[in-house]
Amino acid sequence: VTNQAGDAGAAIAPAGSGRPAAPVVGMVGGGQLARMTCQAAVGLGIGFRVLAADAGESAAQVCAGTQLGDYRSDADLAAFAAGCDVVTFDHEHVPGAQLAALERAGMTIRPGSRALRLTQDKRVMREWLTGFGVACPPFTEVASAGQIARFAAAHGWPVVLKAVSGGYDGRGVWVCGTADAAADVLAHAGEHGLELIAERHVAFRQELAALVARSPAGQGAAYPVVRTVQRDGICHEVLAPAPGLPPGRRAEAQQLALAIAAELGVAGLLAVELFDTADGLLVNELAMRPHNSGHWTIEGSVTSQFEQHLRAVLNLPLGAPDLAGRHAVMVNVLGGDDPSDLHDRLIHVMAADPGAKVHLYGKVVRPGRKVGHVTVVGDDLAQLRGRASRAASYLSRGLAEE
Amino acid sequence: VTNQAGDAGAAIAPAGSGRPAAPVVGMVGGGQLARMTCQAAVGLGIGFRVLAADAGESAAQVCAGTQLGDYRSDADLAAFAAGCDVVTFDHEHVPGAQLAALERAGMTIRPGSRALRLTQDKRVMREWLTGFGVACPPFTEVASAGQIARFAAAHGWPVVLKAVSGGYDGRGVWVCGTADAAADVLAHAGEHGLELIAERHVAFRQELAALVARSPAGQGAAYPVVRTVQRDGICHEVLAPAPGLPPGRRAEAQQLALAIAAELGVAGLLAVELFDTADGLLVNELAMRPHNSGHWTIEGSVTSQFEQHLRAVLNLPLGAPDLAGRHAVMVNVLGGDDPSDLHDRLIHVMAADPGAKVHLYGKVVRPGRKVGHVTVVGDDLAQLRGRASRAASYLSRGLAEE
Repeated sequence: VTNQAGDAGAAIAPAGSGRPAAPVVGMVGGGQLARMTCQAAVGLGIGFRVLAADAGESAAQVCAGTQLGDYRSDADLAAFAAGCDVVTFDHEHVPGAQLAALERAGMTIRPGSRALRLTQDKRVMREWLTGFGVACPPFTEVASAGQIARFAAAHGWPVVLKAVSGGYDGRGVWVCGTADAAADVLAHAGEHGLELIAERHVAFRQELAALVARSPAGQGAAYPVVRTVQRDGICHEVLAPAPGLPPGRRAEAQQLALAIAAELGVAGLLAVELFDTADGLLVNELAMRPHNSGHWTIEGSVTSQFEQHLRAVLNLPLGAPDLAGRHAVMVNVLGGDDPSDLHDRLIHVMAADPGAKVHLYGKVVRPGRKVGHVTVVGDDLAQLRGRASRAASYLSRGLAEE
Repeated sequence: VTNQAGDAGAAIAPAGSGRPAAPVVGMVGGGQLARMTCQAAVGLGIGFRVLAADAGESAAQVCAGTQLGDYRSDADLAAFAAGCDVVTFDHEHVPGAQLAALERAGMTIRPGSRALRLTQDKRVMREWLTGFGVACPPFTEVASAGQIARFAAAHGWPVVLKAVSGGYDGRGVWVCGTADAAADVLAHAGEHGLELIAERHVAFRQELAALVARSPAGQGAAYPVVRTVQRDGICHEVLAPAPGLPPGRRAEAQQLALAIAAELGVAGLLAVELFDTADGLLVNELAMRPHNSGHWTIEGSVTSQFEQHLRAVLNLPLGAPDLAGRHAVMVNVLGGDDPSDLHDRLIHVMAADPGAKVHLYGKVVRPGRKVGHVTVVGDDLAQLRGRASRAASYLSRGLAEE
């Protein structure tokens, strides 16, 4: 692998200088996923750069290899990619035209633009999954109250309406109990130019996430399947491994994720969000990047998802995805109503629980925004859930418990 | 804690901006200890800066808050300290006059200049330890062949000669089996203006390190006592916990380290290197910073020594120092004779052992220089020692096995 370090960013020297000839990974996006990937890159001794919009973004605060620019700009993306051996992403928002242009220019994009396309369009994703034989909740495109009413007549209320693109963390997802509620969403979508799909509201036993990594060489690694607990459409709590999941269904979820990753030629991480139902597994969403459901791996697995993503996009041998303890529990920290006191609250959490691992993202605190997470690892699941929940709730100033 | 972020470095905003009002720690020195402390700072959401001599130094490559300057310059140190709430150190080489000037200017230096003074002068350290009632190997100042001969007559050959200041990693330490060998060292010391002490060569069962943290509030935390295995005066292997150490002696070592930290008013980490002998424990060296004998804590303890040092210097509640597995083994990676192929060798180690945690420091490879380390955590100590040794040996290109 050659090193093409430019003027900006980490001072990684070329081969022959006496410094290791390490490759450079560039991550588009300056959020907390890039911030935690930056931490993992330090240990691997590789070069790491971030394309951020603003020097105050979560990853830009800590990454020596930060370049400022707009991910929607061909020129900014090309300048960024020129200093990198591999370009990867901490979000799904880079337009397909820009991705395709980078690939035409010979840049290595991982995952590739074809796989990323699925994560940018929920309709395309569901059509692809269905075509590949993967069970998903029933869905259809909807553009009128009549279409929604017909879908509800077939599948019952509530109906889940989702924006085809642009949504995340509960944005762009509406659970509608009545035709009136659906009409309001339809009006909102019309005002904002959003296309919608309707999905059956699934009665699940638990929500699961199957996180796998796949390298261009074809190596795969599957993390233990976890339970995710959502609140208001945002991931609230993750339990690793998922309690009460029969071994057969666990293996099915892992094999499904590995098969999707292989079929799509994913290079990097693939998170598959699933509903565990009485009738089997249904796939809800795909993400091809480090994922909130995998934050527990920093302390709870031999290889963190962030290190694993770097290994995979660099086509390095993958790390062991085994649990480092018996159970790990992660709870997200959401912003409360006082933006300035997060550090003061951290002191109390540290004093109350010396074993809780708090990760703060350096983000501007706004009510309900993800600003950090807490992970605890140990033997007693009920105790761990209590500890993680108390720490995160205190940091969130009670919002998480409302 | 107020935030005094200046122009350079991490973009941490003041209170009221909506971003957490996190304190800023500045670390003087750009080596691997600062690099790994930078990693820990990311998770805590605090500001972190490094004063490095050169943008290519290990920590400067990765730390967004890097400032370039000379730690021997009053002006550079003052400019660096002005942007930090607390200043700490990744080495012992900042001259006492500069430290005292910073303290007079009202800067918070942790550990303080009085404690740091001990780590800069082996004679002062030994005199202080002896005065505090701590057993050390017998020693005396020596400036002539006659003085060395008299010391050897009392304590036997070999005699250990040590430079009073400036030595580390085996530099400045000579084990002399004969008067002729001692005369050569005496001549070398004369040429380089080094003062020497002579120490009795101790017959030990094993070498130990007791790592503790102490906060300004007086809280202490003691890590499990480890065995350190030296090669050519450089730390080669660390076993956590130290095998075969009776509980009474383990507790004695921890209490000794905590007592020294309290008596010296250390704020931060204190590593006490010890000889475990048939007659009891003898203190060999003190270090007041993250220490090579504590690198295993990144994966092997609930709280890494780097996070713990940051907590301690910020007077935050200390983290749990418990083992995260049954055993952890760390082996240093030393530079081999080919400077350019470290990354290529990493690929093979990753393929051979997916659970080995390799940390590379981004340093220029020179034969015998510390350029990384490998840690493995698990249940079978003999197996772990084999895995860590094989991985490090391969990365070191055989040098570590010579």
